Amino acid sequence: MTRTGDHAATSAELGGPEGSTTPEPVFRAGDAEVVRAVDGHLARYLAARRAESLALDDDFTVELVDPLVSFVRDGGKRIRPLFAWWGWRAAGGAATGAEADAVLRAVSAVELVHACALVHDDVMDGSDVRRGRPAVHVAMESMHRDAGMRGDGANFGRSVAVLVGDLALCWADDMLHQSGVPHELLHRAGAAWRAMRTEMMAGQFLDLRTQAAGSESIEAALRVNLLKTAGYTVQQPLRLGALLGGAGHDVTTALHEYGADLGIAFQLRDDLLGVFGEPETTGKPAGDDIREGKHTVLVNEALRLADAEGRPGSGATLRAALGDADLSPQRLVEVRSLLVESGAVDLVERRIESLAASAVERLSTVDLPEPAAARLRTLADAMIRRDV
Amino acid sequence: MTRTGDHAATSAELGGPEGSTTPEPVFRAGDAEVVRAVDGHLARYLAARRAESLALDDDFTVELVDPLVSFVRDGGKRIRPLFAWWGWRAAGGAATGAEADAVLRAVSAVELVHACALVHDDVMDGSDVRRGRPAVHVAMESMHRDAGMRGDGANFGRSVAVLVGDLALCWADDMLHQSGVPHELLHRAGAAWRAMRTEMMAGQFLDLRTQAAGSESIEAALRVNLLKTAGYTVQQPLRLGALLGGAGHDVTTALHEYGADLGIAFQLRDDLLGVFGEPETTGKPAGDDIREGKHTVLVNEALRLADAEGRPGSGATLRAALGDADLSPQRLVEVRSLLVESGAVDLVERRIESLAASAVERLSTVDLPEPAAARLRTLADAMIRRDV
Repeated sequence: MTRTGDHAATSAELGGPEGSTTPEPVFRAGDAEVVRAVDGHLARYLAARRAESLALDDDFTVELVDPLVSFVRDGGKRIRPLFAWWGWRAAGGAATGAEADAVLRAVSAVELVHACALVHDDVMDGSDVRRGRPAVHVAMESMHRDAGMRGDGANFGRSVAVLVGDLALCWADDMLHQSGVPHELLHRAGAAWRAMRTEMMAGQFLDLRTQAAGSESIEAALRVNLLKTAGYTVQQPLRLGALLGGAGHDVTTALHEYGADLGIAFQLRDDLLGVFGEPETTGKPAGDDIREGKHTVLVNEALRLADAEGRPGSGATLRAALGDADLSPQRLVEVRSLLVESGAVDLVERRIESLAASAVERLSTVDLPEPAAARLRTLADAMIRRDV
Repeated sequence: MTRTGDHAATSAELGGPEGSTTPEPVFRAGDAEVVRAVDGHLARYLAARRAESLALDDDFTVELVDPLVSFVRDGGKRIRPLFAWWGWRAAGGAATGAEADAVLRAVSAVELVHACALVHDDVMDGSDVRRGRPAVHVAMESMHRDAGMRGDGANFGRSVAVLVGDLALCWADDMLHQSGVPHELLHRAGAAWRAMRTEMMAGQFLDLRTQAAGSESIEAALRVNLLKTAGYTVQQPLRLGALLGGAGHDVTTALHEYGADLGIAFQLRDDLLGVFGEPETTGKPAGDDIREGKHTVLVNEALRLADAEGRPGSGATLRAALGDADLSPQRLVEVRSLLVESGAVDLVERRIESLAASAVERLSTVDLPEPAAARLRTLADAMIRRDV
């Protein structure tokens, strides 16, 4: 369960000097001002909480709060706040002014939920690298070793990372409720906030579970995509913004359907990058999904095709490679060929195109104000046409 | 880091048939109606969220939500909601009526924060037993094994337990905000809600950190107690209730000071039970704190006394026993004698008495309504005079 939708896009998430070697990521390019505002709100909120923490305890601040602050500051495409923002605008919410600013602050809080998801995800997966740096649990294990502390350093690292994620989750709620958004609006949007976090955890759990079950079901893989990527990454953020903006039933329904199709398309692109993506652009080892034994839609389609077309050798090769942490580059090449030759790659590419097209079509069923409608179409395109 | 204040009281926390062999716990006896109301609110809220989860996914509901529901339903003294309730009453809040009911619902949410703390704590400690049953991560590891799932079962168990705790933390916030408490009141009490969760995590972190550092500092151990037990268990819940009730500066200050003294006294009692408590009443193996290498105030006082009084043999014996997971019953007897003979036990007992007395004295500096004042005095007594 490495990815929650955008993990493959790690290097693109870097806003700092690390990002300078890769092209400006598509998500940021189109919404530079919104992203800057989100970054600013996050930085200010976290700075205020850090100041409170300093009054509590120095070690807590330096060793638990600061890693969270760096994690949030140094990475992230801010894709969920972007969807929430365009949900707000699609509902007719103002582009500027005090209320718009409060809404930007509120939707920025989603990034703190996401920080928890990623930090805890890396603990569960035992992933060592995140956004081109040591994962939080790895950095904390190093601190344990460097300080000559007692006991099991790996366990200490994991434990601190669990607490970093917990803190992010709590502060996400706090930031939402301290955003300055009028109470009636927050109340109206509460259902989306609740559903977003619950669907994130349901998706993470089902991802864990289908991996552990070694499920070859395409339906099960799509179900994980629907909850974990579509629901948590696109649908509920959009709905959060739309409800804040007072959208009616027609608009929320259209956005929800757009989000379902687009979210699944996004995850399918992610699945392809997880096998075919280049380490220089993805920031992840080549073929990471295969080594981790992820039963993605792509993989399960290839297995289904191999079985259906009487190519037991291909199925056996792929099944043997899945979860082999020491998979050689040579065998990864074989797996890639097999996925292409089985027709699974073409099938997934066609499905991405078709889902993206139907997502955009949904938008035209309602009368959305500009530039929200145009921007949601561009976002759909950006989400599926990426190599990072 | 096994305990967050009341872990030693495990068997007393059981409301089910397991509890029938132990006497009615002191906390419950005095506030049976409040505790019943809290239990009822938690049960209803969790049932409603469970119904929503069923609409999302069956496996998620049965394997992630249900373990959380059982965990919350089957245990807990509800001590934090009790303090919050008496904070509300101390501030002049009504005993009955719609507003009182909404406040009871709001303060019940603290139990969900606590569920996260305990479930994650057990993962960090690798504690196998909680409230006389398998810890969540252990139960989930068993599920993995029984279902013949793939991969590392222990890691699966830990991962699911992390998600169970995350879900509890999210639903805690949701329950507070769906409690029906008027917005102005919630806003007024927000500072306590934020501080409570942050102090809980700061306390957990410092507990981890002082253990890993093997710190023999009495000051450091007291600092952990102040954040983890006093702040999170007594002070902030009291303040939450008091702010909901619109308490003025004098009352919140008096309650805060009462909470600091009482919380530390409570933790010191817990430290004694962690070494001298009987498994039949505590539900924990005898001498658990020693095996886990916990540098409690009790232990650090004994080390200080041994060093100061030139008894290097005693210090060496105690240091060797700390963290020895295979400590024999014979050596535990030695450690117990050593703690008594060093004078550390007497010293800690005297400190408990003195802190409890000063806690109660603080109450008399302000004019609190009855029965709140009387009940806070009784609670102080119950918290330090317990053997479970």
